[in-house]
Amino acid sequence: MKIAIHINGGRPDSWLAALPEALRAAGLGADVSVWAPGDAQADFAISWSPSPAFMAEQAAGLQALFSVGAGVDHILGVPGLPDSLPIIRVEDAGMGAQMAHYVSWAALRHLYGFDTLQAAQRERRWTSRLFAEADRCTVGVLGMGVLGEQVAATLDGLGFAVRGFSRSARDPQAYIPGVQHMDASHGLDAFLDGLNMLVLLAPLTRETQDLITLAVLRRTARPSYLINVARGALVVDSDLLAALDEGTLAGATLDVFRTEPLPESHPFWTHPKITVTPHISAKTVVSTSATQIAGKIAALTRGEAVSGVVDRSRGY
Amino acid sequence: MKIAIHINGGRPDSWLAALPEALRAAGLGADVSVWAPGDAQADFAISWSPSPAFMAEQAAGLQALFSVGAGVDHILGVPGLPDSLPIIRVEDAGMGAQMAHYVSWAALRHLYGFDTLQAAQRERRWTSRLFAEADRCTVGVLGMGVLGEQVAATLDGLGFAVRGFSRSARDPQAYIPGVQHMDASHGLDAFLDGLNMLVLLAPLTRETQDLITLAVLRRTARPSYLINVARGALVVDSDLLAALDEGTLAGATLDVFRTEPLPESHPFWTHPKITVTPHISAKTVVSTSATQIAGKIAALTRGEAVSGVVDRSRGY
Repeated sequence: MKIAIHINGGRPDSWLAALPEALRAAGLGADVSVWAPGDAQADFAISWSPSPAFMAEQAAGLQALFSVGAGVDHILGVPGLPDSLPIIRVEDAGMGAQMAHYVSWAALRHLYGFDTLQAAQRERRWTSRLFAEADRCTVGVLGMGVLGEQVAATLDGLGFAVRGFSRSARDPQAYIPGVQHMDASHGLDAFLDGLNMLVLLAPLTRETQDLITLAVLRRTARPSYLINVARGALVVDSDLLAALDEGTLAGATLDVFRTEPLPESHPFWTHPKITVTPHISAKTVVSTSATQIAGKIAALTRGEAVSGVVDRSRGY
Repeated sequence: MKIAIHINGGRPDSWLAALPEALRAAGLGADVSVWAPGDAQADFAISWSPSPAFMAEQAAGLQALFSVGAGVDHILGVPGLPDSLPIIRVEDAGMGAQMAHYVSWAALRHLYGFDTLQAAQRERRWTSRLFAEADRCTVGVLGMGVLGEQVAATLDGLGFAVRGFSRSARDPQAYIPGVQHMDASHGLDAFLDGLNMLVLLAPLTRETQDLITLAVLRRTARPSYLINVARGALVVDSDLLAALDEGTLAGATLDVFRTEPLPESHPFWTHPKITVTPHISAKTVVSTSATQIAGKIAALTRGEAVSGVVDRSRGY
């Protein structure tokens, strides 16, 4: 069995170190190597943002293409992707906990005004904070997949009032206790109504691209707070700035952007109400992910079905 | 019944507004007023940092003295306090949740290096973060009272490895799942051994004053992180600075200080590894606390025992 690693624009080292071991543990012998043009056909590939050249040479002969991240928009948009090639995402593998921590940090910072206190320290100013009650702060998580559910459960554990939204319905009897779930049948407006914080965790698809406009943000409580840990293209940048300027938003913590790295001239960098972090809210835990991928390769070679396969019609 | 409010150095307004209502709800009619010298003897008093003059005029005739905070060191040290006067602290009343949020914010900030990321934003620098795993980060909570237990449970819920220490033993079968409890029989060194973060939540007593020395900090993992939400006098300031300078501590988030407000010339204000906040980690929720105090006054007048009475020999 031949497995190609193709982390376009990133470093393959840790995968090259972890994957052979994980495959051995799954009972598989395999030739694992970093893909180079002209290489022999691989059976499976592990990739981030595959190049058109890789697609042209390898895609048609692959049994499955694994994304090293939870999102797969970096794969689905690449020319030359065969319709029949299964795309398989990493499911959680430690990312949910990190993302829950990132969102908790951002939410607590905003709720208690901790940034203002840290700014006061820089002026040696003994001040106070506003009275804050998490249970009166309603946080909406847009996108209740594996990661969204973990974020929602963690915010619920911290005492926030939590609401989740996804396209499809959930069984309210079997759902996360304390978290209210809404779906397309309720409508997005019902979800947005009264939100004090909006957390974006939806996949980037044709439906979600440019979803977060000024009109959408105006549906939340005024002023609300935006946290984006999904994809930059969910948000219309100029509308976000307008929402901050008109007081619809009190601020935003953004981990993802339309162009990454965020260009030096982009107004988000210096906006006093925007916190910018460099797409770090959830780093792929390579060891855990390699074990998960090796297990799925073993299952596929036995002809079994695996979870995490992308539905091309939904785009995630 | 006469009740005196005496918030020395603070504002009594919210207590004056909330307490009569809470007493009515508890079935008690009472004359509630802010104490002034020469006032008639009160039956109960609600106080922060009572003055010696108040003690001289009122203490001997009180049935009980209520602290408006969880700590009571601001009362026990005041001259003229009769040995027999019951001192009753506020128990939780919404403070535990706030403190758990404060400590979570500080712990996540340190674990993920979020302050470094915010500093990078000020330079428009797209950078990265260190790999962080909460379950490999052991946090010790020194002082497992009502507040300490809530902090420990919340950190456990976030995935940290949590250890608690208090003077007296707990039943391990009936304790917070996931939290390891240690007491005097294990010894403080066993508790400190391998700690990546140390959270101070102990009351200020003769035993805990100046407890946190350089020698104690050196017992933790190197480098560890200190979070103090208890009382400033638990820590020897110069030893904390020495621990930072020698690399025993990577940093500290401090909400409490020996002198408050922290004097403008104090080195903590400008130390690059110290975060200073102005004693805000848990604000007394007056409405909830007033209800709790009114309920206890009602119980005491019926001759019943109440919880939260300070043990003078322990000092808390």
